[in-house]
Amino acid sequence: MNKIRILIIGLGRIGKIHLANLQAMEEIEIVGICDPTHEAKIFSNKAGLAFYQKDFTDIASEVQADAIVICSPTDTHANYVSLAAKKGIDVFCEKPLDLSLEKVKQVLKTVNESKIKLMLGFNRRFDSEFQSVKEKIVNGHIGDIHTIKITSRDPSPPPINYIKSSGGMFLDMTIHDFDMVRYLTDKEIVEVYAKGNALINPEIAKAGDIDTAIINLTFEDGSMAVIDNCRKAVYGYDQRVEVFGSKGMVQSKNKFDKYTLTYSEKGVTSPLPQHFFLERYADAYKKEIDHFIDCIRHKKTPEVSGFDGLMSLVLGLCAKESLNCNKPVVVSEIDKT
Amino acid sequence: MNKIRILIIGLGRIGKIHLANLQAMEEIEIVGICDPTHEAKIFSNKAGLAFYQKDFTDIASEVQADAIVICSPTDTHANYVSLAAKKGIDVFCEKPLDLSLEKVKQVLKTVNESKIKLMLGFNRRFDSEFQSVKEKIVNGHIGDIHTIKITSRDPSPPPINYIKSSGGMFLDMTIHDFDMVRYLTDKEIVEVYAKGNALINPEIAKAGDIDTAIINLTFEDGSMAVIDNCRKAVYGYDQRVEVFGSKGMVQSKNKFDKYTLTYSEKGVTSPLPQHFFLERYADAYKKEIDHFIDCIRHKKTPEVSGFDGLMSLVLGLCAKESLNCNKPVVVSEIDKT
Amino acid sequence: MNKIRILIIGLGRIGKIHLANLQAMEEIEIVGICDPTHEAKIFSNKAGLAFYQKDFTDIASEVQADAIVICSPTDTHANYVSLAAKKGIDVFCEKPLDLSLEKVKQVLKTVNESKIKLMLGFNRRFDSEFQSVKEKIVNGHIGDIHTIKITSRDPSPPPINYIKSSGGMFLDMTIHDFDMVRYLTDKEIVEVYAKGNALINPEIAKAGDIDTAIINLTFEDGSMAVIDNCRKAVYGYDQRVEVFGSKGMVQSKNKFDKYTLTYSEKGVTSPLPQHFFLERYADAYKKEIDHFIDCIRHKKTPEVSGFDGLMSLVLGLCAKESLNCNKPVVVSEIDKT
Amino acid sequence: MNKIRILIIGLGRIGKIHLANLQAMEEIEIVGICDPTHEAKIFSNKAGLAFYQKDFTDIASEVQADAIVICSPTDTHANYVSLAAKKGIDVFCEKPLDLSLEKVKQVLKTVNESKIKLMLGFNRRFDSEFQSVKEKIVNGHIGDIHTIKITSRDPSPPPINYIKSSGGMFLDMTIHDFDMVRYLTDKEIVEVYAKGNALINPEIAKAGDIDTAIINLTFEDGSMAVIDNCRKAVYGYDQRVEVFGSKGMVQSKNKFDKYTLTYSEKGVTSPLPQHFFLERYADAYKKEIDHFIDCIRHKKTPEVSGFDGLMSLVLGLCAKESLNCNKPVVVSEIDKT
Repeated sequence: MNKIRILIIGLGRIGKIHLANLQAMEEIEIVGICDPTHEAKIFSNKAGLAFYQKDFTDIASEVQADAIVICSPTDTHANYVSLAAKKGIDVFCEKPLDLSLEKVKQVLKTVNESKIKLMLGFNRRFDSEFQSVKEKIVNGHIGDIHTIKITSRDPSPPPINYIKSSGGMFLDMTIHDFDMVRYLTDKEIVEVYAKGNALINPEIAKAGDIDTAIINLTFEDGSMAVIDNCRKAVYGYDQRVEVFGSKGMVQSKNKFDKYTLTYSEKGVTSPLPQHFFLERYADAYKKEIDHFIDCIRHKKTPEVSGFDGLMSLVLGLCAKESLNCNKPVVVSEIDKT
Repeated sequence: MNKIRILIIGLGRIGKIHLANLQAMEEIEIVGICDPTHEAKIFSNKAGLAFYQKDFTDIASEVQADAIVICSPTDTHANYVSLAAKKGIDVFCEKPLDLSLEKVKQVLKTVNESKIKLMLGFNRRFDSEFQSVKEKIVNGHIGDIHTIKITSRDPSPPPINYIKSSGGMFLDMTIHDFDMVRYLTDKEIVEVYAKGNALINPEIAKAGDIDTAIINLTFEDGSMAVIDNCRKAVYGYDQRVEVFGSKGMVQSKNKFDKYTLTYSEKGVTSPLPQHFFLERYADAYKKEIDHFIDCIRHKKTPEVSGFDGLMSLVLGLCAKESLNCNKPVVVSEIDKT
Repeated sequence: MNKIRILIIGLGRIGKIHLANLQAMEEIEIVGICDPTHEAKIFSNKAGLAFYQKDFTDIASEVQADAIVICSPTDTHANYVSLAAKKGIDVFCEKPLDLSLEKVKQVLKTVNESKIKLMLGFNRRFDSEFQSVKEKIVNGHIGDIHTIKITSRDPSPPPINYIKSSGGMFLDMTIHDFDMVRYLTDKEIVEVYAKGNALINPEIAKAGDIDTAIINLTFEDGSMAVIDNCRKAVYGYDQRVEVFGSKGMVQSKNKFDKYTLTYSEKGVTSPLPQHFFLERYADAYKKEIDHFIDCIRHKKTPEVSGFDGLMSLVLGLCAKESLNCNKPVVVSEIDKT
Repeated sequence: MNKIRILIIGLGRIGKIHLANLQAMEEIEIVGICDPTHEAKIFSNKAGLAFYQKDFTDIASEVQADAIVICSPTDTHANYVSLAAKKGIDVFCEKPLDLSLEKVKQVLKTVNESKIKLMLGFNRRFDSEFQSVKEKIVNGHIGDIHTIKITSRDPSPPPINYIKSSGGMFLDMTIHDFDMVRYLTDKEIVEVYAKGNALINPEIAKAGDIDTAIINLTFEDGSMAVIDNCRKAVYGYDQRVEVFGSKGMVQSKNKFDKYTLTYSEKGVTSPLPQHFFLERYADAYKKEIDHFIDCIRHKKTPEVSGFDGLMSLVLGLCAKESLNCNKPVVVSEIDKT
């Protein structure tokens, strides 16, 4: 079996996770790291990895890679995916493909014309809790789905500068929840209504964004979903799903490092959920990249497609539009533009 | 201490509960039951209670009562309350006061001009779980409230005939949740957006109603609430609240008759929640009527006022309007009409 | 249907509970209260009940009763039961029948020669949690029982004077757990090993008793039970059972008044279990006396027999013997004396 | 920093875990695998590791190692540890050191006369749940410890042949629980009473062993512990601890891969605990070997000493003696022989 040659583009927080997970796998060769920063250079040198302090476009012809893993800033994704598609290199790309719907559609057209595999980094699809929920639905334990509720709260907001270039909470944070709704139901959303405010930090409002939101989604069959988001939950990362249907309900739980219960004369206390997304989704990141490699090796289609990336972007844009005009927005309207 | 003389109007399911709870209290005299049905007559005779198979308006001058407990059909409430107000008789009235906003406002005007006590039967305010949630909020454990989530699902829908005259799900079922949101937050709602469908039974759609809904509420300070309702949860009565704020979160739980856990090689199983509202809120009904009697005895103002009845009706009407026009509805618009 | 005439002997804490529960039942006539104290007299007069400030032996011929409910001090039980048996009056008697095995055997002989019903007050057999555990066992969910574990802890120790005349912790407190083990398993215990110490309060040691104990029980088939007791759990009344067998395990839970969970940045807190046995077993006391009345009315044999009272005493005496000699004690040895 | 050179002796199930964990650490050099089996040879060759199909005694002079990790059969441990001590090589040794108390004492004498570090493989001390329990105790949340309860049940019994040479359940299985009791309390046990039977499989009885046991331990201060063991829990690996004291109680929980709750009209179901010890203690194995390496690197004393190995053996032998004579056994009696 030949080794699969991987180039990693962008060695930030997420890039390092994918790198570590890939290094622990058999028959993988990391052919290089591509990143403009000095910090990435030091890290790569120390790890004995080939390093390119250039743009991927400059080295695409030079590096021999079977696949690239894109963890660079969002505004670079579209170009890199297109270039890889043209060169026949498989791509794992962190979400979103781009903040512009037009650009995403162009990229997907290029990808579709090629034969490359494109997998979007919706890591939560690989989380054991959510997979367990999905399994219950698929096995018929819930019956027809009537209502889905997703709670997704971060332990603390990102820096204001990050927020400014993030595309807004719906495209940066809720996008995962939009994808989760689609993943769990296998149904498409026809209408979005979003309501939100900056309740945590007035600086976020000044930056033109919100930090707390409730988003209603309606499916084609009249069933509904509701997502509640917040940038700051003092008790940690809060990631829950509840699916309710004609035969029952399934709830996923937050994950905890410790489960001990302590009884005193004042009450019962137990530990907080895992605080940080890297900890909460550590296993999901592993299984996600495993799946990508498995798809390459066994010529399978990745379970998270470019279309999934497109649709979560569409839903995010609908939510933005809905928030601005304070009205429900029909999804197809945007979708067809 | 003189006994407090109570007349009970309407001896259906709820009337019997109030009767039994009043009979178990000291210094209460049930001066009679007023109900048009033969069944109520048999019940009253068997229990040795004075019985009036007439309309309250016919016997109001005849019966010597300090207070009336109104459990008759909704369309009788307004008249009875007005009459009692004019006679200076205190009133406990099941919700809603009426389905017409105009009529409710008239009744409240009459009540306000009298000196009687009027308490609305929002029993859930007296439930230990919800009171515990309220206590946490009042004691500052949650900080500023950012999001409230209420799940309220019935074990099975009422008969179609009941649905037809119920005023619709928002006025019959969600009205309790509107009141709960106001009770817990002590804040007023400025905007309502409601989405719903008949997913359980097409007969409900034919009757012009829905059985599943998600309702978004926005407070004056920009914080938000979301209620999800369903007329049928196969696993029983589902009554939960979650309040999330700047300092933390509090969640109430469903109540169970049994809590045993059984482990087999297939999994862990545990019993279902209490199935029926009379069981779930048995203690709340007791505490509610206790509070009413306590207010009479010690000349206190009931914690659930006529204004609370008005506001939950207003919110229900806003939700109806929002559902019909598929747009958010500003509360003050309706309120001022 | 004739009313069942009940005389209550002893109007302490437990006597009052049985009285209240009997008063709430239909077709019951309380023919009197028999109690030497002035306090009981005042209470009975206020409640309009016939009162006898005499010993039951003095009034047995005078009072017309179908059944007596014995809640007087332990050392009076044997005489009262014997007397009632001779007069053909049914008996509900609080545990234990007596602290002397010889006396208990004599009483049971007298009872067996009569046709009266004798029911012992092992209230926990009527608790919904423990009944749910029993149901799982009887329905075969646990398979062959291998191990039973009972945790039974009081919120605080009784007064030293009470302890001195209680017969010791095994006869006063563990006796309930011995009965629970027999109730759940329907198996007899052949050996007892008990270990204990006064860890809470040295005064308890001075009074010749212990406050903390672990008791091992072996059944005839080699399966085992273990009971852990303590007179003081700062977090409240702790009453749990775990039954483990060839097909699975069932665990009962403590009961709580409130179940709310509060999340802050420090951790998750939840309320304590119910603190007091009267609260924890309020429903069990009701169902217990209901069962007694039902047995009288429908000529059925009570589910808790005099033999059950004898066996729990035997086990308590074995435990005492084992603690003293620090050796396992074979049950039959004592049983046959 | 020089690499620490490690020789692994015995490449069975546990040996492979330690190997994998050591390979993932920095600055560790695996200088070889020592194992008599062909299977280990194939594995080592495939992994590119130096392999010695000889006894450690034959190669001790040949291999340059700073430390050995002993995972070979129990009857080899004593010799290997002694030899390493004489050569000044640090040792990590799986429990037990030996089944003979005499031999263990000799080995510890040799170790004490050397300056080597000896760490026993009581992996559970490094489990997050148990460490959390310990933390609560150490921080004073429990107050004086009154009772400790350990439940330790395997998902299924080992093969009969393994059982025959295992030293019996107390030395093979309970030995971990004895160590846990000592770890959590920092107190020594003065008396042991053990009761057990073969309830799972009669072949185990024929092999002279038991499969279900309850073991009582008494501490020097009169407080008590109870361990319940079973070789087969159909619902999976059951590993729980409860510590009860003057100020409160702390309970550790089993670990689960998934926590989803599913509600149907029949009940609520949730997944089973992790089934296998390698899964349950995966993190503990990592932290354990990390600690050993950390002790070597920073010249610290391992938290699990040879004396800990001795004491858990002593307690196991006391339990065996107690089971045989059906009497409590004073620990010092055996200890001093």
